[in-house]
Amino acid sequence: MSTRVLGVDPGLTRCGVGLIEQGAGRSVKLLFVDTLRSSTDLPLAARIAKLADELEQIIIDQRPNSIALERVFAQANVRTVMGTAQISGVVLLLAQRHGIPIALHTPSEVKAAVTGNGRANKSQVSSMVAKILGLQEVPKPADAADALAIAITHSWRMGIAAGAESGSSATRTTSAQEQWRAAIEASKKSK
Amino acid sequence: MSTRVLGVDPGLTRCGVGLIEQGAGRSVKLLFVDTLRSSTDLPLAARIAKLADELEQIIIDQRPNSIALERVFAQANVRTVMGTAQISGVVLLLAQRHGIPIALHTPSEVKAAVTGNGRANKSQVSSMVAKILGLQEVPKPADAADALAIAITHSWRMGIAAGAESGSSATRTTSAQEQWRAAIEASKKSK
Repeated sequence: MSTRVLGVDPGLTRCGVGLIEQGAGRSVKLLFVDTLRSSTDLPLAARIAKLADELEQIIIDQRPNSIALERVFAQANVRTVMGTAQISGVVLLLAQRHGIPIALHTPSEVKAAVTGNGRANKSQVSSMVAKILGLQEVPKPADAADALAIAITHSWRMGIAAGAESGSSATRTTSAQEQWRAAIEASKKSK
Repeated sequence: MSTRVLGVDPGLTRCGVGLIEQGAGRSVKLLFVDTLRSSTDLPLAARIAKLADELEQIIIDQRPNSIALERVFAQANVRTVMGTAQISGVVLLLAQRHGIPIALHTPSEVKAAVTGNGRANKSQVSSMVAKILGLQEVPKPADAADALAIAITHSWRMGIAAGAESGSSATRTTSAQEQWRAAIEASKKSK
């Protein structure tokens, strides 16, 4: 069975999501890429729930084997970092509730893995993502390319060190999680 | 019918939760207070999911009419602020999914409302919380007292300006939310 990695570049206004399939060696294939958005006109709780609903639908539909999330730093832009951290919390929750291992990678780890330079700029990352995945065009906006870069990083790092950071525990599925998943499935069928 | 306000002092290691009942005028009554904890030994996703499960159970069991959450600032302690923001995101999501209006209050708004001084220290806040709620002892740890202070602040501010910040939209319950709630109920019954 193939291994599918969902990369998430967390954000409240734009949240990049990219799914890749891991092949032999370092080969990776693009399966899905999107940028989820929430309007600044909505109240915060509604924005978070909108993104959570869309992320959860992607998890259910695409059934990734693992999720890779960009680690947020408090040193980053103070104006946007709180929303980014809030979405990160939601992604971590969804991963755990769906029993999918999730790992965090720092921006410099992602840049280093994809371009060989931990201080590469956004356009260098986007270009390398297109090259690695054999795409005709560079994925846009940058959030979408970043999500794919995170997924590629995770896929390659997993290949080196099997069993990522949070993977070991996230694969244990508790009874509560099982029930919750059954509830989600039931909810889906009732639509 | 009485109005029940759930205050949440978000945190990854300790998350304070306090439920109060709003009476006539400014009178408030303690219904429930607790401090949820997650071990630093657990992976991040498991910690977040544990707190989310416990918070969600409280929402289901106690059925608050509104939730009040402390607003996190990026300027706060850099080492803990990301976890705090992640839990905030989860609380916002749970509130929206359960169709409960949620509002945010800053630490200085809470201090000012409860003690009359926006720069009051933790012990002054705890003492006033005990006094306002007519408690024999000061609630401990500080996270529990803070959660009650947030709930009291919200209750009093709502009394002044009916319809809080996020209330207007959070009260709209979408079909997806209804289904999700039904799923949660179904999951609960199947336990």
